[in-house]
Amino acid sequence: MADTAKAAVFVGAGKPLEIQEFPVPTLAPGAILVSMEMAAICGSDAHALHHDSTPAPMIFGHENIGTIADLGSGPRTDCMGDPLREGDRILFRASPCGRCLNCARGNFCMVPPQPGFIKSDEPPHLQGGFGQYLYLNPNPWLLKVPDDMSTERALVSVVGTHTLLNGLERMGGISLGDTVVIQGSGPMGIGGLIMAKLLGAGRCIVIGAPANRLDLATEMGADDTVDIGYYKDAESRVTKIQEMTGGKGADVVIECSGAPAATEEGLEMVRFDGKYLIVGPWTDYGPQPINPSWFPRKAIKATGVLASEPRHIIRAMRAIHNMVEAPVEKLVTHQFPLAEVNEAFESHEKLTAMIAVIRPNA
Amino acid sequence: MADTAKAAVFVGAGKPLEIQEFPVPTLAPGAILVSMEMAAICGSDAHALHHDSTPAPMIFGHENIGTIADLGSGPRTDCMGDPLREGDRILFRASPCGRCLNCARGNFCMVPPQPGFIKSDEPPHLQGGFGQYLYLNPNPWLLKVPDDMSTERALVSVVGTHTLLNGLERMGGISLGDTVVIQGSGPMGIGGLIMAKLLGAGRCIVIGAPANRLDLATEMGADDTVDIGYYKDAESRVTKIQEMTGGKGADVVIECSGAPAATEEGLEMVRFDGKYLIVGPWTDYGPQPINPSWFPRKAIKATGVLASEPRHIIRAMRAIHNMVEAPVEKLVTHQFPLAEVNEAFESHEKLTAMIAVIRPNA
Amino acid sequence: MADTAKAAVFVGAGKPLEIQEFPVPTLAPGAILVSMEMAAICGSDAHALHHDSTPAPMIFGHENIGTIADLGSGPRTDCMGDPLREGDRILFRASPCGRCLNCARGNFCMVPPQPGFIKSDEPPHLQGGFGQYLYLNPNPWLLKVPDDMSTERALVSVVGTHTLLNGLERMGGISLGDTVVIQGSGPMGIGGLIMAKLLGAGRCIVIGAPANRLDLATEMGADDTVDIGYYKDAESRVTKIQEMTGGKGADVVIECSGAPAATEEGLEMVRFDGKYLIVGPWTDYGPQPINPSWFPRKAIKATGVLASEPRHIIRAMRAIHNMVEAPVEKLVTHQFPLAEVNEAFESHEKLTAMIAVIRPNA
Amino acid sequence: MADTAKAAVFVGAGKPLEIQEFPVPTLAPGAILVSMEMAAICGSDAHALHHDSTPAPMIFGHENIGTIADLGSGPRTDCMGDPLREGDRILFRASPCGRCLNCARGNFCMVPPQPGFIKSDEPPHLQGGFGQYLYLNPNPWLLKVPDDMSTERALVSVVGTHTLLNGLERMGGISLGDTVVIQGSGPMGIGGLIMAKLLGAGRCIVIGAPANRLDLATEMGADDTVDIGYYKDAESRVTKIQEMTGGKGADVVIECSGAPAATEEGLEMVRFDGKYLIVGPWTDYGPQPINPSWFPRKAIKATGVLASEPRHIIRAMRAIHNMVEAPVEKLVTHQFPLAEVNEAFESHEKLTAMIAVIRPNA
Repeated sequence: MADTAKAAVFVGAGKPLEIQEFPVPTLAPGAILVSMEMAAICGSDAHALHHDSTPAPMIFGHENIGTIADLGSGPRTDCMGDPLREGDRILFRASPCGRCLNCARGNFCMVPPQPGFIKSDEPPHLQGGFGQYLYLNPNPWLLKVPDDMSTERALVSVVGTHTLLNGLERMGGISLGDTVVIQGSGPMGIGGLIMAKLLGAGRCIVIGAPANRLDLATEMGADDTVDIGYYKDAESRVTKIQEMTGGKGADVVIECSGAPAATEEGLEMVRFDGKYLIVGPWTDYGPQPINPSWFPRKAIKATGVLASEPRHIIRAMRAIHNMVEAPVEKLVTHQFPLAEVNEAFESHEKLTAMIAVIRPNA
Repeated sequence: MADTAKAAVFVGAGKPLEIQEFPVPTLAPGAILVSMEMAAICGSDAHALHHDSTPAPMIFGHENIGTIADLGSGPRTDCMGDPLREGDRILFRASPCGRCLNCARGNFCMVPPQPGFIKSDEPPHLQGGFGQYLYLNPNPWLLKVPDDMSTERALVSVVGTHTLLNGLERMGGISLGDTVVIQGSGPMGIGGLIMAKLLGAGRCIVIGAPANRLDLATEMGADDTVDIGYYKDAESRVTKIQEMTGGKGADVVIECSGAPAATEEGLEMVRFDGKYLIVGPWTDYGPQPINPSWFPRKAIKATGVLASEPRHIIRAMRAIHNMVEAPVEKLVTHQFPLAEVNEAFESHEKLTAMIAVIRPNA
Repeated sequence: MADTAKAAVFVGAGKPLEIQEFPVPTLAPGAILVSMEMAAICGSDAHALHHDSTPAPMIFGHENIGTIADLGSGPRTDCMGDPLREGDRILFRASPCGRCLNCARGNFCMVPPQPGFIKSDEPPHLQGGFGQYLYLNPNPWLLKVPDDMSTERALVSVVGTHTLLNGLERMGGISLGDTVVIQGSGPMGIGGLIMAKLLGAGRCIVIGAPANRLDLATEMGADDTVDIGYYKDAESRVTKIQEMTGGKGADVVIECSGAPAATEEGLEMVRFDGKYLIVGPWTDYGPQPINPSWFPRKAIKATGVLASEPRHIIRAMRAIHNMVEAPVEKLVTHQFPLAEVNEAFESHEKLTAMIAVIRPNA
Repeated sequence: MADTAKAAVFVGAGKPLEIQEFPVPTLAPGAILVSMEMAAICGSDAHALHHDSTPAPMIFGHENIGTIADLGSGPRTDCMGDPLREGDRILFRASPCGRCLNCARGNFCMVPPQPGFIKSDEPPHLQGGFGQYLYLNPNPWLLKVPDDMSTERALVSVVGTHTLLNGLERMGGISLGDTVVIQGSGPMGIGGLIMAKLLGAGRCIVIGAPANRLDLATEMGADDTVDIGYYKDAESRVTKIQEMTGGKGADVVIECSGAPAATEEGLEMVRFDGKYLIVGPWTDYGPQPINPSWFPRKAIKATGVLASEPRHIIRAMRAIHNMVEAPVEKLVTHQFPLAEVNEAFESHEKLTAMIAVIRPNA
């Protein structure tokens, strides 16, 4: 193992990420060291890059897959109870603390800091995915990736899909054969599409743009797409969905676009007694014109979601592993070495990439 | 039995209800005749009274309790399978049709017309609660009232409480010990209070006015009340609820006020991972300023409800029957003979009454 | 339309079904007449054929598909609200009554008699699927079959799958990626397999025999099969399932075999915190040796199911319609004209058929 | 603080507990020291006392309440986020680990050893409730007891009630107004009674003995009791429950007796579409005669439960705090100083006590 490792460091809002070199840390009892394979650029990374409130310096990267470089005195089994060895590919996180109120409720422990959100100015420094090594604090949550699953495919389990699965579960699930409309054709929207299909949706309609994203949606199983370049205003899109559903509206609508006006539009698309899921967090654009009477008049159930729990990563990975008919790995459209991390962010922000990843050791 | 019966008839928007006399109808196979004991004035009756779109002539009254005057060839058992005899007090409805999509989903069959919403210009004429007799179409849904339950108390099972129970069930229920905030201190708000207490809420806070309604809320079990005459703006009420909950927000907020701005206010009061229930239908005031990011940022579940199913009436009546410690019958604050039906509506509209009822045979 | 129609009539336990001729009935208001396409032989039909307690005479057949021969004054739309015309293919039932306690609970209305369970000695006589025409009483529940769906495929929606869907819903659903073990490889077992796959199971293991049934299971999507001809005793099967699940047990086990000892065996296969579904009704073999401590020690949830609701048929049909990758129609292995109804029962009872159907008008 | 502390030590099956003295341990980082107020004797303690497989030496006591003697570097807030100071009364546990499969499923983490189940031969020795001090390992789960709640009342939150709440939640909850039958009148049965009442049960019937336990059940809110000293056989009890429910059976039956034959008896008492909860763990008496056809024929949902999660303790304590009308504290019928620990076990085993507690510092 090398003595030093490179990482892309956020040094302040509006500045390019800098490649810096750090000593490879020694392990505290229970900590482990991961050699990074791939880290995806998340919308929140791009958001953080431009905001003064983001603490610096920091190594981003929280949608990660890597191999175990040093198990130290860390866990000998993963979350499934399966044995772990150095060299195993893993998905990972900080474990929920078990003692806070959010843990008691089974939703969104915020106690242990997560990789990708920890300042890098003090040892062990390397705590984000955009680096060659990643130091995982003691009591990490670990999930071994099956040997016959590609790294790209496994990565999709921690990009979009897991959060969407959490949201769909919290929403009360999908009923077999449901017509599902997805607002947005980015990684979250596609994550919603994949999860809805796996959970038994009968028909999935993806609303978005540009054409290459809609084509990918079709490859992932979308039954229909609605191009917002053609259907430019909310009214035309609502009318289109009403037509496509015989005037009944959609059983389920999932908002993954983050557009300020999307919620009112989505509520109009939901059928009587239907469900609405809002995925976030997104930029807070403040209050929007939304008609609250949709809720009682259409007996709508609405739910918001912003993250996931370990069970959702387990389920997402197992299900994507089995979803052999869809070329899920194609969602990783762009791969960059660490040195091109700023170009990677550009491909993300210009929407040329669906999922852009950094391969820190490539 | 008399040959004729009087009823209060809606004859057009803005006109007083007229007392008219109708022949007591003969029964079609399966139909039954009810002698009315009490019919409550619902907010939707008051609303219908002033709207041009309400069909005329019509006998209002859909929150009803009566005795069986003539069983004809109708059912010999109620919905519980218990025997029915003439003279039995009953709660009643048209049964769900069983063959529509809403029936398949178990939510809000709109096929058979309900008592109180049927035009009175053709036989059997008498199909609303504000009349001495009420003709129930074949295949009625019937629930016998226990002998030891007062008529007022039983009536509360079909005023507010049943709809709130449906809403709370659809919302995913209350967790034992939850802090519940109720926006609104009218019959729906008190219905929410009663149901929340019965379902295990730990602390219930009712926001409303005037003082006599808040006092009734306290008698029904409210742990605290917030007077909107004192806390006049949304910000002060949100601050008050935050104070009362140690800065955590409410586990559950129930909107029963119908105020256009109530939804945004209520969403601000809900804690992280909390629930919001919107009860309706209310006048559609169109889009309001609502921040959709509350949903993902606080992982909120929101649900709307506008009516109930038979199971909710059964459960509400059984539970209120057992709720001996609360003087539920006091919610019926005003009783009027049929001749004073217009005065009854006035007591409802001026909020002097909590629940105002007509006793058509008094 | 002909004046008379033939049907297979049960005339007493142990006697062959007799082909009899009946006048085609005239329609009461709201009733409709169906020209039968296919009626499957259900295990309960075979059971009824041999029991003295079965009322005679009776025309069996309750898993039916037909075309509308005469709509009379019956419904102009199906349960989805879609228009109906004579000649349309439909799935059908008597609608739930809407007024009984089981209706209030949304589970198993027993009030209106169902086609296939009505004595045939009085007009309209023709009320079972094993006849050329079937008279549907007023207020029927109707579901139009899509034009591009084969009759065989649609029939599967009312054989096994709908009941299994009900059971899986009542059980609390399947979690994405679950390992599901199915005890039994007959129509119910295969129905469980199809539903589990559609609902997101990751891996399905079917235990049964003979080989042709297990091969069909594989064609329908089973990931593994366990042949009870090879694994002859319960202990060996439990060991096998433990091996196949890395010693963890199955997330979900579904009992569709009807064997008296299957429940204890199945409970042993379920993992900690897993689920067990028992499908029936089956012959009541009386008490069996079952260890009740499995329930608390493994925190098992167990559920029984014996039928379905309209929503399950809707969802099953829509989902099977979309399940293009599985040759579901192949489950209908044997088709017989009405004259060969006794041979059809024989193919069912000897297990040579998976699903044996009568084509009364072939 | 004293340098040494006494504790009752299990030294081998069949031997009396011995009072031994241990040094008061120094705290590891994150650990805290509790001064014990009360520890209840659980049925599992009595069971362990007589079994060779119980590891010795060990300090029993896992249903505990104490005050914080030394917070060390442990948490400054409890699980609700409320501030903690030395001297505060607390309920406590080891927190779930957050990284195992049971944690992912939110059910029964077995990774960190719990107080009362840890061998006492090595430092810090004092890790059970039957001692003057209790050393809590790092990352403890802590819940502050409100100042206005008696110690006895708070203790009931961790005796029976929390496990029953978990069970009732897992079972799918109670519907408002349900008739609930409880098999068993010990601490678990009474816990079930309290929780069922709080969750909205309409009528609760407790089956058990002796008379003093049934009287306590009545004081806690039981509407009826059935004395097994009078109704000596299962058949007479089933008949009695059928009579008491108008021939319908109970909506919910909860098995808390631990008797081998109770499950079959309980399943006979459940109504069609009802629920059955089995509380444990109990001695494994092996397979019993149970009719599996009850499950499909009555569409029963059955669930087992053996423990609880932190959320159940939070909810149980908050709800019991509010349950002012029931004298819950009376359930603690017997209190003993540490020196009389063996007499305390005797009062438990002879059923003279409902809940017997040790006051180690009395």
